[in-house]
Amino acid sequence: MQNPKLSKDEVARAALRILDEMGLPDLTMRRLAADLNVRPSALYWYFPNKQTLLADLADRIVTQGRPAELVTGWDEQLRLVALALRDSLLAYRDSAEIVSSSLALGLGENPAHSTLRDALDSSPFDAEMTQRAAATMLHFILGHVSLEQQRIQYDSLGALSGEPVMLRMESCAGAFRFGVDTIISGLKQHSLAHPTATPGE
Amino acid sequence: MQNPKLSKDEVARAALRILDEMGLPDLTMRRLAADLNVRPSALYWYFPNKQTLLADLADRIVTQGRPAELVTGWDEQLRLVALALRDSLLAYRDSAEIVSSSLALGLGENPAHSTLRDALDSSPFDAEMTQRAAATMLHFILGHVSLEQQRIQYDSLGALSGEPVMLRMESCAGAFRFGVDTIISGLKQHSLAHPTATPGE
Repeated sequence: MQNPKLSKDEVARAALRILDEMGLPDLTMRRLAADLNVRPSALYWYFPNKQTLLADLADRIVTQGRPAELVTGWDEQLRLVALALRDSLLAYRDSAEIVSSSLALGLGENPAHSTLRDALDSSPFDAEMTQRAAATMLHFILGHVSLEQQRIQYDSLGALSGEPVMLRMESCAGAFRFGVDTIISGLKQHSLAHPTATPGE
Repeated sequence: MQNPKLSKDEVARAALRILDEMGLPDLTMRRLAADLNVRPSALYWYFPNKQTLLADLADRIVTQGRPAELVTGWDEQLRLVALALRDSLLAYRDSAEIVSSSLALGLGENPAHSTLRDALDSSPFDAEMTQRAAATMLHFILGHVSLEQQRIQYDSLGALSGEPVMLRMESCAGAFRFGVDTIISGLKQHSLAHPTATPGE
């Protein structure tokens, strides 16, 4: 039964707080209920299990950083969305893992994937190609941010034995932009090779 | 003290067996010792902690699939290495997570990164650009395979609620090749824009 004292939004915000303070392994339904001073069963109305909770958190993490402005050109739009996604993810501990799990579980439309796909609206790509382009960018983003977040985590535990080779020569942000630009540049080549756009698109 | 009855190779192979049968969360030093019928302290000679064990496993997983043949052209070489890396990773449960952790911990030269970098030996890129190109490809690979492995895992637990949008329209292998080719195509554009190669390279 829905608890009149507890909104879905309050539950999600409490979960994000636990995530921030303790990390994903400590985010359990039991702890969340304790934090909100309710029985675990009171959470089930909104979130029947941890998977649905994580999917909701993934949505919140990703959508908060969607860039407002619409620029001309799918390439610049995709670039802005990719950079904004990294910023959104870096704002929450273990977020790359959460978004990746939610993607793997396939719980509904994934907002990380759909913002990237939407950015390609004005591209000449057909539906399948748009899907693949968005997926390529998303895999790169999650791989990159996941490494950054693990570094931060290990660093706070004092477990780092040295700078990994991949991070030695450059800032993370610069390396990220390089990857984003490389993928966009590759997609542009596809669009030249396969100009499948129908007139007016 | 080194146990004369136990080689480093035996310990690593036992660890890979546990990984295969139980997955990463169940791979503990205690269980590994029990499987080998030795005390945990007998493992410390080779692996003072779980991190060094994981780094060694990451090496083994990645290097077993290195393509033998050397083809002409850095682009085709990079493509072969990337496809071989995916195959190697898919051969071991939770391997993307293991390689990613080992990368984040920065324990020595990472073989996944270095095989990709070596593939770029005949490219016109300078050292920093080669580093970034290899990192971009590796992040994409780990992001992609991590999702595939989570899917397999959730599938075996019966936790999948539907095909994720990203996998609906295509095979995983096809999507992977698309991403690899997009990144290579983007790198080629960089090489046209910045022909920094010194003569003879």
